[in-house]
Amino acid sequence: MSSEEFRRHGREVIDWIADYYEGLESLPVLSQVAPGEIRQRLPPHPPASGEGFDGILKDLQDVILPGITHWQHPSFFAFFPANASGPAILGDLLASGLGVQGMLWATSPAATELETLVMDWLAELLDLPAAFHSSSAGGGVIQSSASDAALVALLAAVHRSSGGASEVGGVASGRFTVYTSSQTHSSVEKACRIAGLGSGALRKLDVDPAKQAADPDHLARMLAADVEAGYTPALVVASVGATGTGALDPVGELAELAHSYGAWLHVDAAWAGVAAVCDELRFLNAGLEKVDSYTTNPHKWLLTNFDCNAFWVADRRPLIGALSILPEYLRNAATDAGSVIDYRDWQVPLGRRFRALKLWSVLRWYGAEGLQQHIRGHVALAQEFASWVAADDRFELVAPHPLALVSFRLRAGDEPTRKLMDTINSSGRAYLTHTVLDGQLALRVAIGSPGTERRHVLGLWELIADSMA
Amino acid sequence: MSSEEFRRHGREVIDWIADYYEGLESLPVLSQVAPGEIRQRLPPHPPASGEGFDGILKDLQDVILPGITHWQHPSFFAFFPANASGPAILGDLLASGLGVQGMLWATSPAATELETLVMDWLAELLDLPAAFHSSSAGGGVIQSSASDAALVALLAAVHRSSGGASEVGGVASGRFTVYTSSQTHSSVEKACRIAGLGSGALRKLDVDPAKQAADPDHLARMLAADVEAGYTPALVVASVGATGTGALDPVGELAELAHSYGAWLHVDAAWAGVAAVCDELRFLNAGLEKVDSYTTNPHKWLLTNFDCNAFWVADRRPLIGALSILPEYLRNAATDAGSVIDYRDWQVPLGRRFRALKLWSVLRWYGAEGLQQHIRGHVALAQEFASWVAADDRFELVAPHPLALVSFRLRAGDEPTRKLMDTINSSGRAYLTHTVLDGQLALRVAIGSPGTERRHVLGLWELIADSMA
Repeated sequence: MSSEEFRRHGREVIDWIADYYEGLESLPVLSQVAPGEIRQRLPPHPPASGEGFDGILKDLQDVILPGITHWQHPSFFAFFPANASGPAILGDLLASGLGVQGMLWATSPAATELETLVMDWLAELLDLPAAFHSSSAGGGVIQSSASDAALVALLAAVHRSSGGASEVGGVASGRFTVYTSSQTHSSVEKACRIAGLGSGALRKLDVDPAKQAADPDHLARMLAADVEAGYTPALVVASVGATGTGALDPVGELAELAHSYGAWLHVDAAWAGVAAVCDELRFLNAGLEKVDSYTTNPHKWLLTNFDCNAFWVADRRPLIGALSILPEYLRNAATDAGSVIDYRDWQVPLGRRFRALKLWSVLRWYGAEGLQQHIRGHVALAQEFASWVAADDRFELVAPHPLALVSFRLRAGDEPTRKLMDTINSSGRAYLTHTVLDGQLALRVAIGSPGTERRHVLGLWELIADSMA
Repeated sequence: MSSEEFRRHGREVIDWIADYYEGLESLPVLSQVAPGEIRQRLPPHPPASGEGFDGILKDLQDVILPGITHWQHPSFFAFFPANASGPAILGDLLASGLGVQGMLWATSPAATELETLVMDWLAELLDLPAAFHSSSAGGGVIQSSASDAALVALLAAVHRSSGGASEVGGVASGRFTVYTSSQTHSSVEKACRIAGLGSGALRKLDVDPAKQAADPDHLARMLAADVEAGYTPALVVASVGATGTGALDPVGELAELAHSYGAWLHVDAAWAGVAAVCDELRFLNAGLEKVDSYTTNPHKWLLTNFDCNAFWVADRRPLIGALSILPEYLRNAATDAGSVIDYRDWQVPLGRRFRALKLWSVLRWYGAEGLQQHIRGHVALAQEFASWVAADDRFELVAPHPLALVSFRLRAGDEPTRKLMDTINSSGRAYLTHTVLDGQLALRVAIGSPGTERRHVLGLWELIADSMA
């Protein structure tokens, strides 16, 4: 593609995206296609000769778009948000344009140094403990997802628990145990399986029925029993804003218990953590000064396109110990001198994209105030929505909602609750998802799309009313 | 960022990238900055208020660019290439703009269906066995990197070897063994550590000194001895285009041996595999009809920006068995009906970016012919470069070079060889890296940047001559 062609098609793509956002509200949020429908409309074989770019934009519009569930739609209330934003899109575009691969400091020093800087900036914006700053023994790194963060936290924990012996000898299944609440994201169980401990190593903590938060007494009892039975507790994962209902675990208490048994404490605040940009929401950080690692996703609720997970450790040595291998073909003077960070040693893959650019772009474009405004707006809308639910006898709020996730059910039971969800989602006018709490279905309304305004939340409430009429 | 601001800054970024490529050749390939230099020139704290976008482009130009090692430079001959291209950049930009998260079919059907389609297209373009097509029991998926592919292949292998018991019981360290040659990428050892087997589970196969290819007889002896000693061989990894010198392992023979012991055969063709778009290079596919999984990176040598690793399995059940977990909050009608692919079950993370768009864009823009031309040009240049090396008494070629990687050394020994490399790299006029073979240093010239023409390779040869004068 010549320079002129790139400029021309580049402008077309930029305009396509701008047009997409301008028309987004009129599209059905949840794609209504049947399995196989999209593929069927595309050629079964690749072209022998190159085609122009116009066909791609045409097919995108005509064939792909009906198969898209619009995560950026202002009436997307499902799962958790996955924010995109102009500055993130353009920051990522710059990364694509440069096309550098920052596996080592030496393979693009600026990619590593900017990442270290923006992770320090983000730690400052969230008021995280000093131990997570790169000037300490710890530091931050961008991972692909909170699942990757959970996995590398587990690997670091097992490395530390085994005194490094696991790197050669393996995890000796049946020895190490992991603890987390029944409300924690499934990524922790997946990490146990990937890391070779098996899901049998995972102990699920009971939760407080009102708050859905992990019960420290249950952790204390399980730790004692496991040690008594010859197990080595390696990791406790606390959730700050658990997936089901946004529950907040008592991080400090869990950390103290973990440490009294030599276990690592990792905090998964994938969705909620970024809300600590707001002073009044800093309760989210309670106990963090005691933890070993912490993760939150700018790619969920902080305006930075997927993938951009922020992961910090208070001590980087066990992490690097678990993940570093230095084959000859990657050796270089800077690495040998030990004077630089090589982020390949902080992650599962070797290669890495220059993702710091998009986070840098977001933090500069919005500034602390812009980020606060973004979060505060959604929290206020969620509180208002929750007040409508609370005031209506047909509904029941099922969990606290201090942030922007409201979970509720119909008092009439599971069937009407599911029917309500299906009616809303198949209307195309809004999209929400569910969870199960104490065996009963609950609907989740997660407010967090950058374009969501009061009228969209009001629209959802009216849609709920209409669906039940 | 308003729609108008996005259009304006978007055009600026597109033009910045086009200008960057137009001026790329005049920049030093390898960044010449010292550790800490880039960070020192940036503000230590994040801004309180939002800034405009202009400052980002200005800092990119003035501060970041000197810290960039230019992977797209036509005189980048280091490691392996990491191709960017106009259609890939724009395809990825479209993915950023849409901002969808394709973890489940339901969360954007088109993201899943287009990925399945382009993986089938790529399998067809590379003439891969029918078992890798989605219409069979197998299929393809885009992973982040070949390291991720090696890890999930190992997880699938252990799942199959343990009859699924490892998911609950763990890997029972000391039971499962893994085999690969000393020339294979370090990702295999890393996967053994991550998956909890430990590096002690990895057996390194001897290589043929002339071809650097794995010795099947050595594999046969080790398999027999390990089984005799009570181990369960789980995985054999064959390399097609190993990192050091591009060695080609005898895939078919290794696969037969692996299967005779119930082990999984994974082929890592991260760099070389894509060259099979050319008929005359289909020797790369020898034996693939016998393997369990195969990986190659369009993000290396096939014009598709990082990250885009292509991974295929001949049977998807062990892979999904190893990686699937279905919490309530991800349940949906399409998944429950079993009628769709949910790619989250084929990978480590949960979330996923719409990476199929950039691969689709590349395959359509270039077509089979354009991709062939790209590969053929580099192979021809490498053959010419190798002929110059071979004709000069001061040098020695150290391995076969059927593709576009030429490895050689100075007959005068390690010190002059290293000095030559350092002189070239510090000149900024070209960048190449090294490996060690049989205890001796060798230089690697990997030709594969989209902009590399004969004059750049000739320039490297002249630079070598000048450096030794």
